[in-house]
Amino acid sequence: MLRLITLMTDFGTADGYAAEMKGLLYARVPGATIVDVSHDIPAHDVEAARLALERYWRDFPPSTVHLVVVDPGVGSSRAAIAVESDHRLLVGPDNGVLSPALVVPDARVVELPEPPGASATFHGLDLFAPVAAALAIGTPIEQMGTPFGRAIVRRSPEPQRRTDGALVGEIVTIDRFGNAITNLPGPKGPATLECAGRHLAVVRTYADVAPGEATALVGSGGSIEIAVRDASAADHLGLSRGLTVVLRP
Amino acid sequence: MLRLITLMTDFGTADGYAAEMKGLLYARVPGATIVDVSHDIPAHDVEAARLALERYWRDFPPSTVHLVVVDPGVGSSRAAIAVESDHRLLVGPDNGVLSPALVVPDARVVELPEPPGASATFHGLDLFAPVAAALAIGTPIEQMGTPFGRAIVRRSPEPQRRTDGALVGEIVTIDRFGNAITNLPGPKGPATLECAGRHLAVVRTYADVAPGEATALVGSGGSIEIAVRDASAADHLGLSRGLTVVLRP
Amino acid sequence: MLRLITLMTDFGTADGYAAEMKGLLYARVPGATIVDVSHDIPAHDVEAARLALERYWRDFPPSTVHLVVVDPGVGSSRAAIAVESDHRLLVGPDNGVLSPALVVPDARVVELPEPPGASATFHGLDLFAPVAAALAIGTPIEQMGTPFGRAIVRRSPEPQRRTDGALVGEIVTIDRFGNAITNLPGPKGPATLECAGRHLAVVRTYADVAPGEATALVGSGGSIEIAVRDASAADHLGLSRGLTVVLRP
Repeated sequence: MLRLITLMTDFGTADGYAAEMKGLLYARVPGATIVDVSHDIPAHDVEAARLALERYWRDFPPSTVHLVVVDPGVGSSRAAIAVESDHRLLVGPDNGVLSPALVVPDARVVELPEPPGASATFHGLDLFAPVAAALAIGTPIEQMGTPFGRAIVRRSPEPQRRTDGALVGEIVTIDRFGNAITNLPGPKGPATLECAGRHLAVVRTYADVAPGEATALVGSGGSIEIAVRDASAADHLGLSRGLTVVLRP
Repeated sequence: MLRLITLMTDFGTADGYAAEMKGLLYARVPGATIVDVSHDIPAHDVEAARLALERYWRDFPPSTVHLVVVDPGVGSSRAAIAVESDHRLLVGPDNGVLSPALVVPDARVVELPEPPGASATFHGLDLFAPVAAALAIGTPIEQMGTPFGRAIVRRSPEPQRRTDGALVGEIVTIDRFGNAITNLPGPKGPATLECAGRHLAVVRTYADVAPGEATALVGSGGSIEIAVRDASAADHLGLSRGLTVVLRP
Repeated sequence: MLRLITLMTDFGTADGYAAEMKGLLYARVPGATIVDVSHDIPAHDVEAARLALERYWRDFPPSTVHLVVVDPGVGSSRAAIAVESDHRLLVGPDNGVLSPALVVPDARVVELPEPPGASATFHGLDLFAPVAAALAIGTPIEQMGTPFGRAIVRRSPEPQRRTDGALVGEIVTIDRFGNAITNLPGPKGPATLECAGRHLAVVRTYADVAPGEATALVGSGGSIEIAVRDASAADHLGLSRGLTVVLRP
């Protein structure tokens, strides 16, 4: 049986918080394979974690347990949940970070009880990791909590279509290369992206423009991104999350 | 047999030093599971590594080998040691970083000889990793070196109790969220923490105060920390390691 | 059979790109051991990745697959290659990053075809990781592509010997500690290194000089580096990559 557990947090690694969780997982799951996705999510940035999860959660094989702890509301009344979706299992706070798995039809969600004696500041260790361990050794999800009926999904704004055929969206994140990723899907034909007063033709790849030149292209995730070849588009064009983008055929 | 080896260094990952050590471990320990705890310990910060080790070393299962290389004294006369403590094994320099395991009763310590041909600048690869590999495949610790009798333990200052009942300690580290962790244990009842001219009630969790408000609470490690909800206490309050804190009932 | 795959990229971890590759590898290689070497290579810094690879690739056991994706030319006409060298396998772009394995006699190189439907921006996921997975499960390298005959190797400048016996080289990288690593081999006897107007005796280790003092020594990789004890030589002496160094007996 595959016992693959991935871990994404905003803890960094230097304080030892992530290592505590990994120690517990190795102690409770014989033969576990534990995969560090990232501990470098910006502190409390639920949206960044959600966008990363959307990329990777289905690339891992069925029965993988994805543990996600970006949890600014720890200790408050926010719920803790486990999800079974498309043959993967996910564990984390109910703050929207697990949305990519929740929007799948037939996703099952349970609300996790707070174990007696749990700290009020580190549910990663006291609540989420023990549940991930139990799921990894085959405990059925319905044994981990009670069915969850509340509205739970928070998603990035959907792009809006205007009457003139233009599609209006926004920059949802800036990646490590300084590329600005939007929530607009790749166009079917030639198109132009407008952002911050610039009009950029949508090309195939970075190398289609000269070094230092700004462009738009369809990234590997299927959405349009703004890039500057061999440089940071965010720095060069002054782009940041939330900025409006308009796509025109 | 479990062959779990954890690795904490101040090497970063980009230079390839940590990878050299991991390559050696995989080459010498068939079936090894090697766990990156952190390579982001600030350069030469023995105290930060000690505090992190204190958090995680006992969370891992018995027979785990913890390899810790934060070693500003490499090439000097500082000793190299291996430790068996509470059924775990630890390897690293004798500079205090392994103190959390050394203060346990019945901890056994051996001094490691410098192997012939070892470099004078990278004992992580030439001395510590080979010892960790030997321990992981079951070599008894007494075969790795000679009993070590010198005074070895360096610990953070213990808090002092004053005649008026107040407990005086200090900030021992700032974590990635900007929380200031002290060396004061959680109080039994209501209490106030004084630091940098502020008086903070000790609450249960971050969510007990408004966003942006400063507070004190008992962290998951059991000691009092100073936090600002949804922000960095270190930045907002100008806190840094070594600053005095006073706890009053 | 050993199924060890190492991964070095300039992706960071927070965007989820590296996790996508790891998910694919775990899904395609049952029993895989996947090792994060680094995702912190500076963006597009092929030379930094090459220097790191040089350190670690032979420390891993035979049959290890080293996957290296630092690929500023993705989508351009740069070739994609797989290499079998000294019983290890390597996969990455043909931009010099794999040079350490290519300069070994009898290294075999194949050019990898671009799979149908590959994105033009993320060959790490669409081309390189699938090839690494195939090699890890034992597919012979010649089945992965066609023999590659073009000139492929790019190496750092070799040091030059002057008529007066001095050896002239350069700083090739600055490591996390601020040590400046040169391309000059360690001298046979006493020697002096000249750099940025300073004359530094080549000593054995950091501890041979006083804290804060500048020195030169032979690092674990066998080349001369410039260090300041307990501090960053790059910061203190104003050193950077490309600066000329001269070694005199």
